Amino acid sequence: MLVTVLLLLVTLCAQGGHGEEKVEAQRPGHVSVVIVGGTGDLAKKYLWQGFFELYVNQVSSGNTFSFFGGGLSPEDQGTPVLFEILKAVFCLKHVSEERCAVLKEQFLRLAQYRQLKTPEDYQELAKHIDKQLQEEGMTEAGRLFYLSVPAFAYADIAEKINNSCRPTSGAWLRVVLEKPFGHDFRSAQVLASQLGNSLKEEEMYRIDHYLGKQVVSKILPFRIENKKSLDPIWNKNHIERVEIVLKETLDVKGRIPFYDQYGVIRDVIQNHLTEVMTLLTMTLPLNLSSSEEVTQNKLQIFSSLLPLGKNQAVIGQYQAYKTEVQQELNKTKDHVSVTPTFAAVLAHIDEARYDGVPILLISGKMLDERVGYARILFKNDIFCLQNHNSIHCKPKQIVFYFGHGSLQYPAILVSKNLFKPALMDEWKEQTEHKDVNILGLPISDYYVQTPTVQREAYAELISHIFAGRKNSFISTENLLASWGLWTPLLSSLVSSFPRIYPGGADNEDLLDIRLKGNDISYNSEVVIISPDQMGGTSANGFQVMQGKYRSADMVSAWAEELVERLAADIQEAAEAAVREGGVFHLAFSGGSTPLALFHRLVLHHFSFPWRNTHVWMVDERCVPLTEMESNFHSLHDHLLQHVRIPYYNIHPMPVQLNQRLCVEEDGAALLYEKEVSKLVNGSRFHFVLLGVGYDGHTASLFPGIKMDGLEERLVALTESPVKPHQRMSLTFSAINRAHRVALLVMGKGKHELITQLSRTKDNPNKWPVTGVKPANGRLVWYIDYDALIG
Amino acid sequence: MLVTVLLLLVTLCAQGGHGEEKVEAQRPGHVSVVIVGGTGDLAKKYLWQGFFELYVNQVSSGNTFSFFGGGLSPEDQGTPVLFEILKAVFCLKHVSEERCAVLKEQFLRLAQYRQLKTPEDYQELAKHIDKQLQEEGMTEAGRLFYLSVPAFAYADIAEKINNSCRPTSGAWLRVVLEKPFGHDFRSAQVLASQLGNSLKEEEMYRIDHYLGKQVVSKILPFRIENKKSLDPIWNKNHIERVEIVLKETLDVKGRIPFYDQYGVIRDVIQNHLTEVMTLLTMTLPLNLSSSEEVTQNKLQIFSSLLPLGKNQAVIGQYQAYKTEVQQELNKTKDHVSVTPTFAAVLAHIDEARYDGVPILLISGKMLDERVGYARILFKNDIFCLQNHNSIHCKPKQIVFYFGHGSLQYPAILVSKNLFKPALMDEWKEQTEHKDVNILGLPISDYYVQTPTVQREAYAELISHIFAGRKNSFISTENLLASWGLWTPLLSSLVSSFPRIYPGGADNEDLLDIRLKGNDISYNSEVVIISPDQMGGTSANGFQVMQGKYRSADMVSAWAEELVERLAADIQEAAEAAVREGGVFHLAFSGGSTPLALFHRLVLHHFSFPWRNTHVWMVDERCVPLTEMESNFHSLHDHLLQHVRIPYYNIHPMPVQLNQRLCVEEDGAALLYEKEVSKLVNGSRFHFVLLGVGYDGHTASLFPGIKMDGLEERLVALTESPVKPHQRMSLTFSAINRAHRVALLVMGKGKHELITQLSRTKDNPNKWPVTGVKPANGRLVWYIDYDALIG
Repeated sequence: MLVTVLLLLVTLCAQGGHGEEKVEAQRPGHVSVVIVGGTGDLAKKYLWQGFFELYVNQVSSGNTFSFFGGGLSPEDQGTPVLFEILKAVFCLKHVSEERCAVLKEQFLRLAQYRQLKTPEDYQELAKHIDKQLQEEGMTEAGRLFYLSVPAFAYADIAEKINNSCRPTSGAWLRVVLEKPFGHDFRSAQVLASQLGNSLKEEEMYRIDHYLGKQVVSKILPFRIENKKSLDPIWNKNHIERVEIVLKETLDVKGRIPFYDQYGVIRDVIQNHLTEVMTLLTMTLPLNLSSSEEVTQNKLQIFSSLLPLGKNQAVIGQYQAYKTEVQQELNKTKDHVSVTPTFAAVLAHIDEARYDGVPILLISGKMLDERVGYARILFKNDIFCLQNHNSIHCKPKQIVFYFGHGSLQYPAILVSKNLFKPALMDEWKEQTEHKDVNILGLPISDYYVQTPTVQREAYAELISHIFAGRKNSFISTENLLASWGLWTPLLSSLVSSFPRIYPGGADNEDLLDIRLKGNDISYNSEVVIISPDQMGGTSANGFQVMQGKYRSADMVSAWAEELVERLAADIQEAAEAAVREGGVFHLAFSGGSTPLALFHRLVLHHFSFPWRNTHVWMVDERCVPLTEMESNFHSLHDHLLQHVRIPYYNIHPMPVQLNQRLCVEEDGAALLYEKEVSKLVNGSRFHFVLLGVGYDGHTASLFPGIKMDGLEERLVALTESPVKPHQRMSLTFSAINRAHRVALLVMGKGKHELITQLSRTKDNPNKWPVTGVKPANGRLVWYIDYDALIG
Repeated sequence: MLVTVLLLLVTLCAQGGHGEEKVEAQRPGHVSVVIVGGTGDLAKKYLWQGFFELYVNQVSSGNTFSFFGGGLSPEDQGTPVLFEILKAVFCLKHVSEERCAVLKEQFLRLAQYRQLKTPEDYQELAKHIDKQLQEEGMTEAGRLFYLSVPAFAYADIAEKINNSCRPTSGAWLRVVLEKPFGHDFRSAQVLASQLGNSLKEEEMYRIDHYLGKQVVSKILPFRIENKKSLDPIWNKNHIERVEIVLKETLDVKGRIPFYDQYGVIRDVIQNHLTEVMTLLTMTLPLNLSSSEEVTQNKLQIFSSLLPLGKNQAVIGQYQAYKTEVQQELNKTKDHVSVTPTFAAVLAHIDEARYDGVPILLISGKMLDERVGYARILFKNDIFCLQNHNSIHCKPKQIVFYFGHGSLQYPAILVSKNLFKPALMDEWKEQTEHKDVNILGLPISDYYVQTPTVQREAYAELISHIFAGRKNSFISTENLLASWGLWTPLLSSLVSSFPRIYPGGADNEDLLDIRLKGNDISYNSEVVIISPDQMGGTSANGFQVMQGKYRSADMVSAWAEELVERLAADIQEAAEAAVREGGVFHLAFSGGSTPLALFHRLVLHHFSFPWRNTHVWMVDERCVPLTEMESNFHSLHDHLLQHVRIPYYNIHPMPVQLNQRLCVEEDGAALLYEKEVSKLVNGSRFHFVLLGVGYDGHTASLFPGIKMDGLEERLVALTESPVKPHQRMSLTFSAINRAHRVALLVMGKGKHELITQLSRTKDNPNKWPVTGVKPANGRLVWYIDYDALIG
């Protein structure tokens, strides 16, 4: 009864159309499809229908099929359930009723239920497949396992498949996985490594069903087809902003036990919206069919994304959620969940092309309408002198409309004042439509195109799995890169309390969002009435505290305000120095503490006199400047690259000379010292920024350092107890000549040290930082509350 | 009959109000006011009225006055004319009718007509003043000469004043000048230097009557008063664009002999609109009363403005202008004037704060309405999730409304969704208004403030002259800086044919403007029917030509397209190299020819792989890198500073070692050679860009260069026939190893050379450029049509 007409895979290959992924050559033969969890909800709703459509498309392709629905129940219980499900499959419009009846009957006969629980069950399944192949004398093309089961079961099932179900004789194995793929970076990594023990990367097909949405799958082809029109405008000079939005009207009632562990960011933003973002922003592959190139270009975007912190997100929770949690999780009335059901995140890509372009990712439950779209809003580049009603005076945008909303069908919309886009293969231009307004423009202001046949994402993806189009799936690298982006944000939000919103139209403008440079906030201020409020908003009630520490001046505040204050103080010093002598000499320490300061300077201090500033290093590790470990490298990446400072005002320490690192005879320390003496008046830096290590070291002056003979020197080679051991550092003599020295100490981890130091007398040999005593300058400690109060 | 009540200058000083310019201390006494051209149009319309208002304000201040109207006519003819004019002066509202009659009578008695033609006339005037002072026993406060005469007479009159009319005994001399102050940079400089022979800088008061407009004079005070609200948003992250617009409905009929020499850019953009631009963008002075600081900050803006070229402007001419010119200048029917009566210019300020913010300066005659304003349009920084009608979802802008238009009065408007601005001194909040729409928003969406009393710009400026407030006038430096900005644009527009517009409402969207990165164009394309059309638009019909030159490949095109092509070729080479080996080694020559290329790379090549590019120098002058003459300095300013290239990928030639320049023993050439060998695979650069000098030199390899012993070397010290003589250069050996070498030759000046070279055999000693012969690479000549065709 198996269909065995031999035809090449032409149909499927042709489907892709111009500019799309080329399908790897496949030999036709028998394909065994196993849906593990084959009687579950997802299988019932989408998967069997998808496989039926695959079967219908493949029936005359030369391939033969058998389908297995696997479950934990014994076969006598599972079989009727499966057949109830299978009976509901239907044909798409283009198949005649008669033919459909035949196909459906064939499909039902090819499918069977199997208990898949123990290793023996999998061994039995494999035997069954082998036997069938032998009996019918068929060549095997491949085996497709669709794991429609909770993620915790993946590793175990993968192991069973690996142990007993691998095909022999060069046929392929594909194992399909459904999200969630972990809960954060670490759990995703653990899961990936477990799966990696059983499956090769090319055997894993991680589904993000958004990639199967017809509009989403056309993003790259659209960008390629319209390259000529898009290239001149697809950059920071023309893009005003990018919005990727998924609004839902439903709540999560009934799914709380799952949802409360995840929340909206893990549920849809980390995966669906992030994928859309990468498709919109990645460098176009030269070859769209090279999944390697596509993956590399996607990864490049991840590595260019600026880190997401608390200030790049706002979160919300619909009002009824609290009660639902209490009910479904059996909690008392005072239980509060901070799981967000709404989030807006502001991303920035640190590349010349997108520099400063805001990318908004927004999703929520219980909003006013159900709609999903990605919108590229272009800058207003027209000045209308007289007649403001012309079409060209209107906003310009491209909208990838995933579906629902006022339009009700998937479409790509391009404002008519932009350009007339090429029509996608198997898409049609839509010229007649009801009079709706799409994102601020009447639909008649757009060129609209929509798929000729609307297909479900799952059916689409199942055909891609079969065709081996890996681009439609999430690679391990891609997945980990995405978690790498989102995990720090998720961690930083743990203590934030979401804004409570009533739901639906009542939300009004409560969830409207304001962008402030790289930061994001709710536009309206609301008094949150909640017991948890203290944790999230403490910074608002802030005041900078001034006092004394170790008989020097001290400024203290919460970390963010402290950095603000320090940045303002540096700018003030810079302006004063430039006013007085036309130049400002600033020396920075290495380490991670100053990063927030660099960030602040880059994003908020536009009037900083960089042109007249010379940047010096307080200390350096003896590694090439090009290495990540180099202090200069970090300074360069986080600060220098982003400001307009002349090349010749930058003074890295010459740790590498004559192709070797910090060799005494090369005289690098003396060289740096000479440079300082030559350029810096009296070798007195205007501002020196220092940190302090847990062991009390500052600059690269470590406990036990020998001071003999260094009194006269400004720069010296020193030794660190930790790697890399060799360092170059300004000496106390250089530091203590400075006009102003700032000692920046942040974080709870430094609290003990701060306490200890407050009780310690000057003893630079044991506590080097106590040797910082500017002779004719001013020392100020900048200590955050975490370090000060613990 | 002179009023001699002694009071201090309190009234006038208090007028300034908070945050405004402090008036220099003045001793009260007698003031002689001389309007040269006292019976001319301007004097009749504005000046006498302005001086009368000054008199009314000063009458009880302790100062006494005499007024002289000077003219070329003899006194018996001039006197009745002057008195006709004087009779028309009137009092402002706050003066009672009775008091006004008394004041007017006094004023008339204090004024007299004098013939001012010959040096003797001026000597007589001086004698008259001295005698009067002596007779009445008055202390002299100062002498104010208002030159309301054509500019060509300035130098002569200034000389006469200097020769015979200077006050003695420490009283001040102030000479007021009206535009035009020259026709371009050179003529302005000549005029300034002529005036400088007779007058000190502090004695000259150049009037730009826009600076007397009440709204314009409040721009700086407004920015200072609202610093707290403006600081966070007054930068590229928040400003979408700036528009400075002066629309007029009138034509220039009757003024053609003047206007046709000037045109709209010289008439109002170079002065009025440019001044407004500097006030809007300059760094706020710490002390608004320091005219020195204000001037310095203004000059800083001029030096940061990117050069204006043909691509930063569009021009137009109203249809009837041609006929008016033919009539008024007695020209035949085929005479065509290209003087623009409309222009739109796009300026950019190359400072971190304003990086990429478009600044539009637009003005024209015969437009649809009379209105002047400066508008700061802010970016849309709100994402409205549900309710799009809230005020905070609307555009945000600040409008400095100079007057006329739909509002009909001068005002400062701030959208209510921005902030509530401080009320300016002597201004009132306007809360009741007719229902008008101002630049896209109903007036009720703004906070509106307007001067309590509306004053004419001239009356305002006359009081500032009297008070010595130099900030309200154009200093010589400021004037020359402005001409320095505008002159190159004016020159480049000489051969452009303006778009013809019908005038008034009929213009429709013909003059609408489109911004494209740094360029500007009309939005709609129009076939210009005009005999001059060929000159201006030839570049449109362009095609790049490919051929052979000196048996190497040649690309030729008009300059702009040639540079486009070269930039694209470099990017292609870069991408190929990075694809292949992960790195691209690019060597640039010095000189001015590559500047257009750098510009192109910065503004259009966002995807250039700078991260993976190493930039090397082909040659360098033996001067410190920090000097303007340095090739690296130029490369840095025009290219490196604007792209994201890592610090360690930049390789300036080490012309300075051991605090001396290019000393053979310091081994700098060898050092650079080592760096090349270490980093560049096989010392083969991927791309070397060369130019060629009039003498046939390339890199810094000059005619007569000794090749002996250089065959093995990659880098050498060489000698130039022109200063600075010492150079460092790649050798032929280094150049000819390269994968690709481009020889860029542009400009008519190179035509002879190109012809010569096409006939010359290889002779590197005489024509060094003929020594460029890549061994395993490709040489391409990029020659523009000017150089090729002459």
